[in-house]
Amino acid sequence: MKGTLYGLGVGPGDPELITLKALRILERTSVLAYPAPEEGESLVRSIVADHLDGHHEEVCIRMPMVSARFPAQDVYDRAAADLGRHLDAGRDVAMLCEGDPFFYGSFMYMFGRMAEHHPVEVVPGVSSLMACAATLGAPLAARNDVLSVLPATLASEALERRIRDVDAVAIIKVGRHLPRVRTLIEAMGLTGSARYVEHATMASERILPLAEVADDTAPYFSMILLHARGDAWKV
Amino acid sequence: MKGTLYGLGVGPGDPELITLKALRILERTSVLAYPAPEEGESLVRSIVADHLDGHHEEVCIRMPMVSARFPAQDVYDRAAADLGRHLDAGRDVAMLCEGDPFFYGSFMYMFGRMAEHHPVEVVPGVSSLMACAATLGAPLAARNDVLSVLPATLASEALERRIRDVDAVAIIKVGRHLPRVRTLIEAMGLTGSARYVEHATMASERILPLAEVADDTAPYFSMILLHARGDAWKV
Repeated sequence: MKGTLYGLGVGPGDPELITLKALRILERTSVLAYPAPEEGESLVRSIVADHLDGHHEEVCIRMPMVSARFPAQDVYDRAAADLGRHLDAGRDVAMLCEGDPFFYGSFMYMFGRMAEHHPVEVVPGVSSLMACAATLGAPLAARNDVLSVLPATLASEALERRIRDVDAVAIIKVGRHLPRVRTLIEAMGLTGSARYVEHATMASERILPLAEVADDTAPYFSMILLHARGDAWKV
Repeated sequence: MKGTLYGLGVGPGDPELITLKALRILERTSVLAYPAPEEGESLVRSIVADHLDGHHEEVCIRMPMVSARFPAQDVYDRAAADLGRHLDAGRDVAMLCEGDPFFYGSFMYMFGRMAEHHPVEVVPGVSSLMACAATLGAPLAARNDVLSVLPATLASEALERRIRDVDAVAIIKVGRHLPRVRTLIEAMGLTGSARYVEHATMASERILPLAEVADDTAPYFSMILLHARGDAWKV
């Protein structure tokens, strides 16, 4: 019998924000897969490190630094072949995913390669989107709000049009786009309701009103939350 | 010393989708608050029922059936006064929230009343949005997708404009708007990529292509997910 590939959402960073289900599956699978940078530690593995007892065969998928627009297809192809061999041999594989596997996660690249020929199950996790709102102490969306998630990679004009059309906005993948996005929000007169969160729920968490973010760049795990109607979330 | 009010996200319905953090706080608080219908059982309490050992003083907040546009302010006012007395007496209160507290949750009504005068902490949970995508086995959003969450209560024209402007859409609060929304999606030629999920991860879970949903109404906990570019999520 073939093994199952589990896409395990392990939450945004705080090791306590893993679900009982993800933990149970982690404990009973024999193979553990996770992405890691070209050199150094895997962030997502560190989130669950305290729960690992050494019984797993580990598959570390090292991603070379490439543009987000052109993910390293070769790396995913090789990893898919690797994991496929484990699954064909009847071994269940847990693939660790920061936040939620299907919310802008890299798990989709494995899912796209594996789902046709192997059983794949996704365990949803606490997303960075919800973690940022909790960290800020400000509701993300309520009642009949329209909420949009906008990658900062969008052109300024497209960002502006979409921000204008909704009630609440999460701008993700801020990274090197920070100065441009900050300027845009300032020009729209929305800086007062914009807040910046970096590494939500991790030890390195940083929360600031956008007006106080002086940096020229931001890490990949950063987000700007704003309410286009300003204080509209207050009730 | 004042007690803390915890908004505990307990996940979308599967009792195993609670986080370790929510569980720990549940165990160490002395007061348990939760919403319930005017008569009958509280859904959110049933999600955590297996973890309750009887030590809590319980505050059941019974909500009369009123329009979603005009929530029962009196009920929240009375509940806030109730919980305030517990907090003033130094007792920590855990308020249970389906999914995530700040993602269209009713916790915001309590948060708005309590946060100014009492310590309030929000524990993010697995949202129904992520649970629906996991249940469907289809990524919600990836790469540079724009994702919008649209309440079905919006007028058809507003819904249509927003669906056209983004890559992935979650239509929430479907309820009695089901026939109108289904007709709109059909008229836009998007029925083929629209999927309907009811009670995701609960025992009563129901998943159908939208084309096969014959009902005239839907429960509150239902969602339509669609990819405006059709199969764009496939990689």
